Amino acid sequence: MSIETVSTARAFGGTQGVYRHASAATGTDMTFSVFVPDHPAGARLPVVWYLSGLTCTHANVTEKGEYRRACAEHGLILVAPDTSPRGEGVPDDPDGAYDFGLGAGFYVDATKAPFDRHYRMWSYVTEELPALIGEQFPADMDRQSIMGHSMGGHGALTIGLRHPDRFRAVSAFAPIVAPSQVPWGQKALAGYLGDDRAAWRRHDAVALIEDGARVPELLVDQGEADNFLAEQLKPDLLAQACEAAGIDLTLCMQPGYDHSYYFISTFMADHLDWHAARLK
Amino acid sequence: MSIETVSTARAFGGTQGVYRHASAATGTDMTFSVFVPDHPAGARLPVVWYLSGLTCTHANVTEKGEYRRACAEHGLILVAPDTSPRGEGVPDDPDGAYDFGLGAGFYVDATKAPFDRHYRMWSYVTEELPALIGEQFPADMDRQSIMGHSMGGHGALTIGLRHPDRFRAVSAFAPIVAPSQVPWGQKALAGYLGDDRAAWRRHDAVALIEDGARVPELLVDQGEADNFLAEQLKPDLLAQACEAAGIDLTLCMQPGYDHSYYFISTFMADHLDWHAARLK
Repeated sequence: MSIETVSTARAFGGTQGVYRHASAATGTDMTFSVFVPDHPAGARLPVVWYLSGLTCTHANVTEKGEYRRACAEHGLILVAPDTSPRGEGVPDDPDGAYDFGLGAGFYVDATKAPFDRHYRMWSYVTEELPALIGEQFPADMDRQSIMGHSMGGHGALTIGLRHPDRFRAVSAFAPIVAPSQVPWGQKALAGYLGDDRAAWRRHDAVALIEDGARVPELLVDQGEADNFLAEQLKPDLLAQACEAAGIDLTLCMQPGYDHSYYFISTFMADHLDWHAARLK
Repeated sequence: MSIETVSTARAFGGTQGVYRHASAATGTDMTFSVFVPDHPAGARLPVVWYLSGLTCTHANVTEKGEYRRACAEHGLILVAPDTSPRGEGVPDDPDGAYDFGLGAGFYVDATKAPFDRHYRMWSYVTEELPALIGEQFPADMDRQSIMGHSMGGHGALTIGLRHPDRFRAVSAFAPIVAPSQVPWGQKALAGYLGDDRAAWRRHDAVALIEDGARVPELLVDQGEADNFLAEQLKPDLLAQACEAAGIDLTLCMQPGYDHSYYFISTFMADHLDWHAARLK
């Protein structure tokens, strides 16, 4: 596997890079960012995965996420993938909506045409990109954790719940916790997976917990002034599922905070501190 | 004076706002951002001015500057103005170059047509906007400091040197220290001020120091991998002028760092700590 370096810049005593490679999973070029703190020669550092939300690329969190200081302090690599395949021949939402297609891969492997050819973000994020990171970066793949925002919070929760032995910490900012029960998720799961409700349940954090998936603990921050809270996010559904399953959920409701990177950046260091404690 | 609120968001225990007003100085609408940490009712907080570089608006530092954590910790308001007038009827560089006209006001009051009508950023930043901030925000205008990046570092140094009683701290990231001696500055000063070299000297930090302007100390961070270092920035000229004038310059050369917000954000907290110590 080979990667192309799009850019690197020194930041917070480390290197913030952006890279591109030809993905076998999606059949497209994919771009991602990696922050690597300075480290002793030969050292391998824990890896935090950050999955982004609707409309985002790697660039949003890379520019606005304010993660580098904490990653440098704790010696953590942070990887930020794109949110969908892109490029010529990749189908988009028929109406060009922001919540499906480009920028809205929902971290599933699509089974429904025409999306099944390129929209394979589950395989990309759980298999292909981790292999590339382990090969090309000084990453200790035995110490990984995962976090995400909104649609990426959905991705972090579902991927974390289905890989309890891989991720030592799972957290989210304003996640979609039950896509089967909200408009964003219903549109995406129907569009990518069709009517197979069993397949939907494997991409729904609340349903996964109801069906027996377990992690010891979860951390979620949620802004109380988030415009999407009541209709799309519904953290109470996650709280109920965790309560019934005995999962130790720390759900921090943050008065006044919205759905933006102003919210994410405010609580990023808290999440990275929490991850670091579990990755050491 | 009245202002329009473009947006506000809660961040780091404060409010990040973006505002617009009709400027008498520039004869245009002007947009700026202000971060106000939470504070006791009736309290007035010190104000840090951040002046941006070529091509920027208020948005670059607001999104990428990573200043809010330190401002909240220290109880500092941060104001980020735009870098030029904008809008219908505002003349731009005849060739559309990035280093003159829109996004490149150079913090001078132009005297040369057609720029003399709107390009009055010196008056805007030193008079009109401070009056607005003092009136509309919980700002203690007896405790101000100023910083900036590149062209904005030039602005911070020249404004600071010409107002030693107003600003308790003056610092810069990769500033243009001697515009009369470098291509960016020569183009801008000639374009806005014409051939009046005495007017140029009042907008050149090194010349101001040579001509007797004094502040007790300055802080400058400069990346050694900055593409503009040798041709446009020349911090050695500032070091020589400060040495001769007895100004205590702390010039931090940062190996590997470039001219971007990856560099600025890395050292932003250092600068804000330094400002806070002088504003308390």
